[in-house]
Amino acid sequence: MSWIVREDGFRKERITTNSNKFMIGNGYMGYRGTMEEFTKSELTATTLAGLYDKVGDKWREPVNAPNGLFTRIQCDGSVLSVLEAEPLEHEQELDMQHGLHRRKTTFSAKGDNRVTVLSERFCSAERLHLIVNRITIHCSKDCELLITTGIDGDVWDINGPHLERMVGQVEDNCLVMKGWTHELNQPVSVVEAIECNFGEKTIITEEQSIYRQIVVQYRAGEKYTFTKYVSVYTGMDEVENISLAAVQSSLEALRVGYAQLFLEQAVIWNRKWEMSDVTIEGDKEAQHALRYSMYQLHIIAPEQSEKVSIPARGLSGQVYKGAVFWDTEMFMLPFFLYTQPEVARNLMMYRVHTLDGARRKAAEYGFEGAFYAWESQETGDDACTLFNVNDVFTGRPMRTYFRDKQVHISADVVHGIWQYYTFTGDESILLDGGAEVIWECAKFFYSYAYYNSRKERYEVLDVTGPDEYHERVNNNAFTNMLVKQTLFVTIEVMKYLQNKNPERYEIILSKEQDGITLEQISHMYDHLYVPQPDQDNKLISQFDGYFKLEDVSLTELKSRIMNKNEYLGGGNGLATTTQILKQADVILMLHLFKDRFDQETKQANWKFYEPRTEHGSSLSSCIYALVASDIGSPDWAYPYFMRTATIDLTGESKQYVGDLYIGGTHPAANGGAWMAAVLGFAGLRYQGDDVIISPALPEKWTAIEFPLCVRGQSYKVCVSKEEVHITSHINNTNTMLFTICGQSITVPGGQEITAPYNCIIQT
Amino acid sequence: MSWIVREDGFRKERITTNSNKFMIGNGYMGYRGTMEEFTKSELTATTLAGLYDKVGDKWREPVNAPNGLFTRIQCDGSVLSVLEAEPLEHEQELDMQHGLHRRKTTFSAKGDNRVTVLSERFCSAERLHLIVNRITIHCSKDCELLITTGIDGDVWDINGPHLERMVGQVEDNCLVMKGWTHELNQPVSVVEAIECNFGEKTIITEEQSIYRQIVVQYRAGEKYTFTKYVSVYTGMDEVENISLAAVQSSLEALRVGYAQLFLEQAVIWNRKWEMSDVTIEGDKEAQHALRYSMYQLHIIAPEQSEKVSIPARGLSGQVYKGAVFWDTEMFMLPFFLYTQPEVARNLMMYRVHTLDGARRKAAEYGFEGAFYAWESQETGDDACTLFNVNDVFTGRPMRTYFRDKQVHISADVVHGIWQYYTFTGDESILLDGGAEVIWECAKFFYSYAYYNSRKERYEVLDVTGPDEYHERVNNNAFTNMLVKQTLFVTIEVMKYLQNKNPERYEIILSKEQDGITLEQISHMYDHLYVPQPDQDNKLISQFDGYFKLEDVSLTELKSRIMNKNEYLGGGNGLATTTQILKQADVILMLHLFKDRFDQETKQANWKFYEPRTEHGSSLSSCIYALVASDIGSPDWAYPYFMRTATIDLTGESKQYVGDLYIGGTHPAANGGAWMAAVLGFAGLRYQGDDVIISPALPEKWTAIEFPLCVRGQSYKVCVSKEEVHITSHINNTNTMLFTICGQSITVPGGQEITAPYNCIIQT
Repeated sequence: MSWIVREDGFRKERITTNSNKFMIGNGYMGYRGTMEEFTKSELTATTLAGLYDKVGDKWREPVNAPNGLFTRIQCDGSVLSVLEAEPLEHEQELDMQHGLHRRKTTFSAKGDNRVTVLSERFCSAERLHLIVNRITIHCSKDCELLITTGIDGDVWDINGPHLERMVGQVEDNCLVMKGWTHELNQPVSVVEAIECNFGEKTIITEEQSIYRQIVVQYRAGEKYTFTKYVSVYTGMDEVENISLAAVQSSLEALRVGYAQLFLEQAVIWNRKWEMSDVTIEGDKEAQHALRYSMYQLHIIAPEQSEKVSIPARGLSGQVYKGAVFWDTEMFMLPFFLYTQPEVARNLMMYRVHTLDGARRKAAEYGFEGAFYAWESQETGDDACTLFNVNDVFTGRPMRTYFRDKQVHISADVVHGIWQYYTFTGDESILLDGGAEVIWECAKFFYSYAYYNSRKERYEVLDVTGPDEYHERVNNNAFTNMLVKQTLFVTIEVMKYLQNKNPERYEIILSKEQDGITLEQISHMYDHLYVPQPDQDNKLISQFDGYFKLEDVSLTELKSRIMNKNEYLGGGNGLATTTQILKQADVILMLHLFKDRFDQETKQANWKFYEPRTEHGSSLSSCIYALVASDIGSPDWAYPYFMRTATIDLTGESKQYVGDLYIGGTHPAANGGAWMAAVLGFAGLRYQGDDVIISPALPEKWTAIEFPLCVRGQSYKVCVSKEEVHITSHINNTNTMLFTICGQSITVPGGQEITAPYNCIIQT
Repeated sequence: MSWIVREDGFRKERITTNSNKFMIGNGYMGYRGTMEEFTKSELTATTLAGLYDKVGDKWREPVNAPNGLFTRIQCDGSVLSVLEAEPLEHEQELDMQHGLHRRKTTFSAKGDNRVTVLSERFCSAERLHLIVNRITIHCSKDCELLITTGIDGDVWDINGPHLERMVGQVEDNCLVMKGWTHELNQPVSVVEAIECNFGEKTIITEEQSIYRQIVVQYRAGEKYTFTKYVSVYTGMDEVENISLAAVQSSLEALRVGYAQLFLEQAVIWNRKWEMSDVTIEGDKEAQHALRYSMYQLHIIAPEQSEKVSIPARGLSGQVYKGAVFWDTEMFMLPFFLYTQPEVARNLMMYRVHTLDGARRKAAEYGFEGAFYAWESQETGDDACTLFNVNDVFTGRPMRTYFRDKQVHISADVVHGIWQYYTFTGDESILLDGGAEVIWECAKFFYSYAYYNSRKERYEVLDVTGPDEYHERVNNNAFTNMLVKQTLFVTIEVMKYLQNKNPERYEIILSKEQDGITLEQISHMYDHLYVPQPDQDNKLISQFDGYFKLEDVSLTELKSRIMNKNEYLGGGNGLATTTQILKQADVILMLHLFKDRFDQETKQANWKFYEPRTEHGSSLSSCIYALVASDIGSPDWAYPYFMRTATIDLTGESKQYVGDLYIGGTHPAANGGAWMAAVLGFAGLRYQGDDVIISPALPEKWTAIEFPLCVRGQSYKVCVSKEEVHITSHINNTNTMLFTICGQSITVPGGQEITAPYNCIIQT
């Protein structure tokens, strides 16, 4: 059952949570796990990747397409809906193995009639524009059914409505609903073709919707099945006539039929899991949660486009403006990098394509180079506003500095590209624009940093680090460390380019009007201040003056809260004057640069910062898990791992900041769960030389097995408490050096080796 | 009547305001204008200059001495107090000419008895420890009077009580009340000797008080007069036994008698006015208000001590912790400098004596040199707390950055010393410690500033300028300009010292462990960025990014206010994200450096910033008046001048910020009124070469006359609309160059000249 996510019974208060939990998607679009009879008040949404719209001065956000999966069934005049009356039975489940959503409800209808509705749907992984939905109805008594099914264009929007001039019509026996976005006049078409060999059909057209009504004289005991083939096209797709393309897509699907379409789906999903699935022995709960985390990543991965990346709430709606944050590089990228490097490449190429937006942002603030958007949409311009949260006490918008001061984003992008390049050895990423991104980010930091003449060093001032409760600080250790890495990478890449592609090298440098030179970058690299561990207690100050802040316990801080939704950061937030942090900050640095700090330093800082972390971000727990594993304390890590891996299963995450709804799925935590398991407990890492495995398994795990794709070679790695077993794929041509608990082992292509060890830190 | 400030009738709601308005003082102590029968609930206070105390973790503030002027009169058993019943008649007045407070009240007593109490009191300007109080009682009927008079030790304190172990006793027929401060165990003694040749006297001792009860069988029509000679000594005074000294002082006063003591008072006050009084022809209201402003400065001037300076609320109580702010250098110093340079010297020597405190503050923040206290008390350590204002919506203390970021204070101190030196030519200020202060302040700024490698300039980052509604800004024009001046002054002074006193020069430099060199200071001076007027519109940006803030009208901003006491600055203050400023900032810079900016620039900026200024500080209006005069618009200036000059007469100033009481007198505004009149309308200035007079009189002023003391020479200057008349004092030995409306005139010692002019900007 570890492939199935399931809930029995229906509870109204779980609608929002379960619609996130039971999402399906294919990277092109996400479809929330709502019931067929739901409308916008239950937050139905078909969220489109990369298509954004802005209405008036409201926030710019992704567009939800008209809902092609709307179906309402009436039996002898009464509506069968979980919203109307408590169903006799209800179950909702997700078949993660195939990306399939299933819902089965038994309603009580007139005259003791038991009506069971089974609905199955999937976003086709083979045909990205297509959603397929098959509905089967079974009644215990003779009755008259009235089925209303079609396209509901009156969709949920946070800052909409986004589609205007909506037109519904019928073409080639398909329902077509088309509208245009406000801001850019982009068309969106949704088309439904239906396979339904029963009943009398009538077309109903409403202002924003188009339906078929199907009237059926039902005979007890029979099964009635119909299938909807819904296609979505937008102006972003490179087709001439999007409605025509959608009609063709739906008619083609109709022709192919449900069974064959599902087979295609199964083949692709099988491949996804083959490349990524992790099995855990000895812990079914962890196994289930980890697999679910990977499922969430698979349904939103932009497998076929390098123009979009993954938003912070995936494709679960319009929360956070559907924007791409640092979450992608720091929390999601590793999963793809180690399992599906081509997706990782797409994610990084998105940054190349949005370089101009980052250049505009830098220029807007008076800096050189590229200052990447804190909240990036399709152009790379920053969707982040200066006022992000409302003060719960006054209702006034609060000035926050996410947009202005989280400069680490440019370093995160460079880190991502460098990770990709190091891991895959794929030089094309540099030549296809990556080198330029890196150079522009270095220039940005050179123009952002200041030189302290007194201390003879560069400093990075007035920034916000990952811990957003402390805005506008100086010399945030994490930020400075990443800036230093950016400069290092820049020097390396420019050296590489000068050798490998002197023309490109000259082109990049010749573009410089501002005259920042590689010598200046080098000088800054040599003299950039990065806060170091204290000689005595080994603690690293999160930023200048951090240790002078009030040292209050989290319990005490929480007792000061007057309104449960009050924001702890911002102007007067309760945490801002204390040592309480929102999320891993120094600890994240210790994870990213684990080789540069000794165990004592990592341990001291973990112990210091852990009780001071409020985990107000879903990005926090996995990092504490990772570093706990690294310092040989997997059982400190385990609760953090589980908290991360179950976040979208339980739905127990922060839903509001101020009066701002921030619910939805959490792909960064999903990625974090994978990291905690594979990079943390299994202790895997690769930085261009050997594959290192330093396991620290939780007590009840007897083994963990996972695939690995590195430098074009595929492996299966199984880490148990006694040994590491490595299978080099039969097609591998290269030999790879593995270092297992410090011992080097060469694994030739196509062979298997077993490396027993004694030195694993047991718990 | 322009020497008299008077109010008729008694209104309870005016108690606090009038107690400020009718203050007396002598620089050693201030005595609030309360009635003799008042106690701490009416905020009676004898506020001592320079003696501070701290109780627990409450704010450190000046000590109020026991109230030696307490007198309660009962007539036939009923208490005669304005608090008990409305008096038949009541008047309160201040004789500004002599620093005398007078109160006359007629009470209705039993049996249609009209009892009139006349009380006169003054803080002796000759004998700084002494307050004299003469009370005369007249009744219309025979009656029994019970007079309770003595020392009330149960005094008003904001963060007290400050005196403990209080002991009352009688010595040499004097009442003695002694107590010790909490923190430093400093003793405070108040002694009263009485001249009273009637009645039966009994001593009453209470826990914190000691009184005499005088019982009189009063015969209708007679006048009974008694006089109290109250002396105050503290552990700060250099005497061995403070109670003994106080007893001797009171007995000596008793021997000398009221008439002679008042004569002494008149002589000294006569001299004060001779050196300072300004007469305005054609505007009685302005005349009165300006004189009153000077009166307020005279009663708090530290004439005989260079260890204390003038607190922001004078000696009117404990508001603002009795602390010395930049107010002294920037708003009060000029009055003393132009009229009583020896007081100006004391004010500046206070900064020399508190240099070590400023050094400690710099070190505390990790900087070199001297970072002067934002709120300075006797040691120069900063009394300013990190949380200054409570949020009215939550009641929580708000983090503010007055202490950390108003670095301009160190430049203000240097400006003050430089002003003093330039004006007087008194080199001793430099040799007595001034040079060291200047050098330390320069070092502070060198360590505080950063070098922008990209722009090849030093910048002053993360500061709060005079406009405290915008905290933590970069490159505040005012601050950068003053820092630049500090560096200039440092170079000049060190050059001077090297020539004049090479030993001292070597000593100052040899103290350097930190190795900051004069070359480095010079380099910073040459490359320090100071925001300049825009080439097109001439506007100077108050700080980096100011023009990007919301450009909202003051009316609109005020309409957003939800609680009348809410603070507009701080974390989430309404003004912080807008262009609305608390007080003159750029405009203050244009005043201080008026020679460096052309008229067009001054005009453009005045017009731009004036409608955007909320005048949330009493320091603001006078600066707008000064610059309006400077640009030839005295009638724009006039309302600002009057607002400044009447602030303590009307009492119409901000009384609360959040829930913090900030009432009291406003010596900075008092000094500002003088500046607006003499430096503004009369257009006087002296910067070491010639005395410049560029008048711009308000419409109804026909002339303004004032004394002037410059470089040891005394003058009387009369500016009318047709001419300037200058009288060089008979004792003057030197010739002085005057420049009147651009025309140079030499005025030999002891002579009078009249300079008619045509070029004055008439309105």
